[in-house]
Amino acid sequence: MSGVKQKIKDLGLELPKPLEIPEGTVLPFPWISVRGERVFVSGHGPQNTDGTFAGPFGKVGADVSLDEAYDLARKTGLSILSSLERELGDLDRISGWCRVFGMVNAAPGFNQTPAVINGFTDLIHSVFEKDVARHTRSAVGMACLPFDIAVEIEAELLVSV
Amino acid sequence: MSGVKQKIKDLGLELPKPLEIPEGTVLPFPWISVRGERVFVSGHGPQNTDGTFAGPFGKVGADVSLDEAYDLARKTGLSILSSLERELGDLDRISGWCRVFGMVNAAPGFNQTPAVINGFTDLIHSVFEKDVARHTRSAVGMACLPFDIAVEIEAELLVSV
Amino acid sequence: MSGVKQKIKDLGLELPKPLEIPEGTVLPFPWISVRGERVFVSGHGPQNTDGTFAGPFGKVGADVSLDEAYDLARKTGLSILSSLERELGDLDRISGWCRVFGMVNAAPGFNQTPAVINGFTDLIHSVFEKDVARHTRSAVGMACLPFDIAVEIEAELLVSV
Repeated sequence: MSGVKQKIKDLGLELPKPLEIPEGTVLPFPWISVRGERVFVSGHGPQNTDGTFAGPFGKVGADVSLDEAYDLARKTGLSILSSLERELGDLDRISGWCRVFGMVNAAPGFNQTPAVINGFTDLIHSVFEKDVARHTRSAVGMACLPFDIAVEIEAELLVSV
Repeated sequence: MSGVKQKIKDLGLELPKPLEIPEGTVLPFPWISVRGERVFVSGHGPQNTDGTFAGPFGKVGADVSLDEAYDLARKTGLSILSSLERELGDLDRISGWCRVFGMVNAAPGFNQTPAVINGFTDLIHSVFEKDVARHTRSAVGMACLPFDIAVEIEAELLVSV
Repeated sequence: MSGVKQKIKDLGLELPKPLEIPEGTVLPFPWISVRGERVFVSGHGPQNTDGTFAGPFGKVGADVSLDEAYDLARKTGLSILSSLERELGDLDRISGWCRVFGMVNAAPGFNQTPAVINGFTDLIHSVFEKDVARHTRSAVGMACLPFDIAVEIEAELLVSV
């Protein structure tokens, strides 16, 4: 088992199954695309381990509490790691996180988007070495997100080739 | 005629003229910027073939229907291809789409942003070879977009140098 | 003094101190991250020269005027330059701006987001050589931004290695 995978297990976490795409939806793009050493990550949402989207759904600051949203950002990170493992074969091939764009489905007046996306950043730092985990970040409020998910994250990283 | 341009013509589609910038507006940046093999694409909106912004304008889910928004995302793709052709000379120089960020001017409660941006993704897949067309994507709802356009898309791609 | 730093001084501008992070906030990511020749810039907000976030705060088009927002986008640019100088040592190492993503905390109906982000783009063009300053851009309206700042900008650029 790779070092990263072992750390995920040691933390009692589990990578979810591939996303179970809601019926009637067509998503004609890959979750991950590798071009040379660059790895592009499509916008992911939080998933349950069975692959369904994880709730609570709706607006953070109204339908979803800050603590719940933090946990959903962590779950979004696990979704991304799951997609990366399927594409790369081994999470230890990741040589550096680059850019993370954290999107929060925000109720009017909600301004704690960084505290939400910390659920993702804390996860990445807990399973990757410090210099690999290091990433720049924005954490901002969207008018809406697909399927009313509360958090969506896209990213770019580097892989050893 | 390049292969990509021929496919655009075969589909009965036409690349629009350069954007006719609304009066009183200053946009002090290029639509496309090439740095080495990387091609950066500024946020584009849907255009009519004469270069004006294409409507309907306003919020998808209120002022603009899903079908109309799908078509506007396709028109945004044609705007981007038009800018790329002017900058690169030949669309066949494109060696890979990388990242696509699809922004929808969303009415409150509208959550079908992926179905809108499929208008763009379907276009790219219909005129480029599969491995060139492949791109990761986010499709999310914005509070507002410039000039009340309904869809805006930014992207990054690779070019043979 | 580097050429870029001299130009900033000649314009009567001053780079702010490092961001004074609001109490109770944890931001577990770097403002700048360099990987090879690529420089990633986290989402920055406008700062006063003492390092605090600069107001007015809230929604552009309601709480914040267009002129004020233009100035806040310029101040966001100075924040980014300040972070870049601390990370790179010398702003003259910057060999090219690539991508700029300009986010405006927009009141309902506000559609002049490009005119806001021009405050950033005009600054970059006034202190860097034309071919270095050249960047693609989106300028869009967000539902909310952290700490109710009116403008946030993330970017990517290249550095000589």
